[in-house]
Amino acid sequence: MSKANYDESRGDAMVFETLTARREGSVLFVEISAPPMNLLGPELVRDLVSLIQRAEADAAIQVLVFKSADPDYFISHVDVTRIKEYRDEAAKLTGEASIAMMFRYLSASRLVTIAQIEGRVRGAGSEFVLACDMRFAARESAIFGQIEPAFGQIPGGGAAQHLARLMGRGRALEVLLSSEDYNADLAERYGWINRAMPADSLEDFVRSLAHRIARFPAAGHVVVKERVNAIALAPVEDFRRDSDLFGESVRNPEAQRRIQAAMERGFQTRDGEMDLARMLGNLSDH
Amino acid sequence: MSKANYDESRGDAMVFETLTARREGSVLFVEISAPPMNLLGPELVRDLVSLIQRAEADAAIQVLVFKSADPDYFISHVDVTRIKEYRDEAAKLTGEASIAMMFRYLSASRLVTIAQIEGRVRGAGSEFVLACDMRFAARESAIFGQIEPAFGQIPGGGAAQHLARLMGRGRALEVLLSSEDYNADLAERYGWINRAMPADSLEDFVRSLAHRIARFPAAGHVVVKERVNAIALAPVEDFRRDSDLFGESVRNPEAQRRIQAAMERGFQTRDGEMDLARMLGNLSDH
Amino acid sequence: MSKANYDESRGDAMVFETLTARREGSVLFVEISAPPMNLLGPELVRDLVSLIQRAEADAAIQVLVFKSADPDYFISHVDVTRIKEYRDEAAKLTGEASIAMMFRYLSASRLVTIAQIEGRVRGAGSEFVLACDMRFAARESAIFGQIEPAFGQIPGGGAAQHLARLMGRGRALEVLLSSEDYNADLAERYGWINRAMPADSLEDFVRSLAHRIARFPAAGHVVVKERVNAIALAPVEDFRRDSDLFGESVRNPEAQRRIQAAMERGFQTRDGEMDLARMLGNLSDH
Repeated sequence: MSKANYDESRGDAMVFETLTARREGSVLFVEISAPPMNLLGPELVRDLVSLIQRAEADAAIQVLVFKSADPDYFISHVDVTRIKEYRDEAAKLTGEASIAMMFRYLSASRLVTIAQIEGRVRGAGSEFVLACDMRFAARESAIFGQIEPAFGQIPGGGAAQHLARLMGRGRALEVLLSSEDYNADLAERYGWINRAMPADSLEDFVRSLAHRIARFPAAGHVVVKERVNAIALAPVEDFRRDSDLFGESVRNPEAQRRIQAAMERGFQTRDGEMDLARMLGNLSDH
Repeated sequence: MSKANYDESRGDAMVFETLTARREGSVLFVEISAPPMNLLGPELVRDLVSLIQRAEADAAIQVLVFKSADPDYFISHVDVTRIKEYRDEAAKLTGEASIAMMFRYLSASRLVTIAQIEGRVRGAGSEFVLACDMRFAARESAIFGQIEPAFGQIPGGGAAQHLARLMGRGRALEVLLSSEDYNADLAERYGWINRAMPADSLEDFVRSLAHRIARFPAAGHVVVKERVNAIALAPVEDFRRDSDLFGESVRNPEAQRRIQAAMERGFQTRDGEMDLARMLGNLSDH
Repeated sequence: MSKANYDESRGDAMVFETLTARREGSVLFVEISAPPMNLLGPELVRDLVSLIQRAEADAAIQVLVFKSADPDYFISHVDVTRIKEYRDEAAKLTGEASIAMMFRYLSASRLVTIAQIEGRVRGAGSEFVLACDMRFAARESAIFGQIEPAFGQIPGGGAAQHLARLMGRGRALEVLLSSEDYNADLAERYGWINRAMPADSLEDFVRSLAHRIARFPAAGHVVVKERVNAIALAPVEDFRRDSDLFGESVRNPEAQRRIQAAMERGFQTRDGEMDLARMLGNLSDH
């Protein structure tokens, strides 16, 4: 990790430009804050890489909890104007310029990861929480979507791999072809997340679960993750293939025209994405 | 396709003996009407083959929506008195005399398919909607069942392949051993369908979803289906094997005796199948 | 089976020390009664082996229904003080000293098995019902949990294999890392069981389903189980590997210390396990 991003002076806290991590016992609570809307760009990828490396190297840390400082956006999606840059940052973790490989690395890590979701998680934001070991979401505010089909693309960060296994062929095809928004209750019914719950009980629930797991022997975490991943986590080559397919399709002229049209309607702006599913549905009408 | 079955005079409509297809933009809305109860016999198989071939050949068509003209029966099941005939019709699509292969062909097609379900879908009717990419059903009227176990058979059109993957071992065994009826809400909880919804919102929901998907680039549909099918659609040889097992078992004397007993109680009649699960449960008592 | 355990005098009943089986038509209703809390020890394993062998050898029997004589405990979990003994009993069924192999044998059997669950099913108790073909549970009383992570272990009887397939990666990791209790409604939402239902309708529902299935041709049961198991039942070597991992980890000093600490707080006592999840969560605090 780049020491420049990390403020050594705050004791049990790690402070990066886009992440703040606070340790409580064996649990590291990580807050994502990449204004204005938590786009997954080079800075956030760089900081996630640093955080993962640092946490893995610290035997005192067993569990990571991710949440957002922004009530409306958990991680919105990748910054489509900076794909090469964020991919280069991801390469620092795995040697491959792909966030799919970074996400899979996290899934296979000895660390237990929990996503505590409020606000929007679309595109690679959804793929980040799918890479976590568990996902709990606020019924009132969490919104899930894979927006890539609106541009003629397959998600590049593993969504097809996870969703086909979590929700089955029919629901995965619906999600991956429709670019629709799904609220937390429907996401729970579809298996996208572990559970939807009221926002006012989410934080306590996740904190309690994280500490509970962290109190159990670390050797058990490793073997459970290994055995479950052997069954339910897609092979590296399938993540790599989806990542390559995304990379190829984003250079496609039709995809570029649609991204441009979306940009003109407020894509990658805080206001413009509050009701993104509707905007994407009207894109080809312009 | 046989031109004889297709009325060229109706512009954007394709009219077959048992199907009427109406194009709206890139969506083809297909209505099934094979009175008296939408049995899957040679005529309906022949028309489905023609429709699939015609739609695949027409680059303007991206999405197919299937619904039934009969409020009580979507597709009831195969006509057990005409197995060789409908299998021969299915061979015109894939070269193999098997509706399992026809259904799998549809699942692997570039076309996106949506089943809008009202009424009964049992046996191969259920397998047809399972072959579609998505399934939405009317809470008030849709009824699902695999009736083959009552005759000592495994479903021949892919139900075991789909249901074991969609709902897991326990629920799939229940469905595939019990010959019970399942309403739309339970079918949703089991993952048999994407969603149950009120009948009066079903048509608008499906139409809107179909047009939404159809507006997105077709290249995206193809790659998404390819990647999801690679994970969640069973290999050809497993469909073929189930089809063969069904074909062998239907010639079994015990199966024939049970089919005969069911016929005497109204099997393959509109009235007799309104409460088919109960009738099948009492079969061996006679 | 050991004739000593079986009282030949009761006609259609088979009476073992810890099991009583009563035949009704082609259904065998088996009641588990191993006071004080239905621990899975050598006696219950021995009797299950005998019962399975006897039922498989009797062509008149098609379906087994398992229920508990104890309203609070269905099967609590293995007796951790007698692991070698119960493993030796399990070896009499499959030649391998492993309850994972015994459970997998049952899953692959020609017999259709239904678990009718009231009370607690934790650890190997959960794995026993997962090995059954179907699981229905009383909403008011059934409690599910995998307690092994609290001791730093992976479940040894197949829970990881079943749960990862039934509920997907996120929910399976939650269950297998948290040692939490899950009520019947949540177990249904997660896919752990087929359905939760009111206690007062559970028995009638299961009895009716069992008889319905038993009236259908046995040849159909065999082929359906074979085809579904080929898709959704883990390979023998994965059950064996989990069993070995459990066996190794239970000899680990940290596991032994935690088991000892749990014993001091009432583990393996009827009262001490009424609220076991809470006790396990506080274990490392002592």
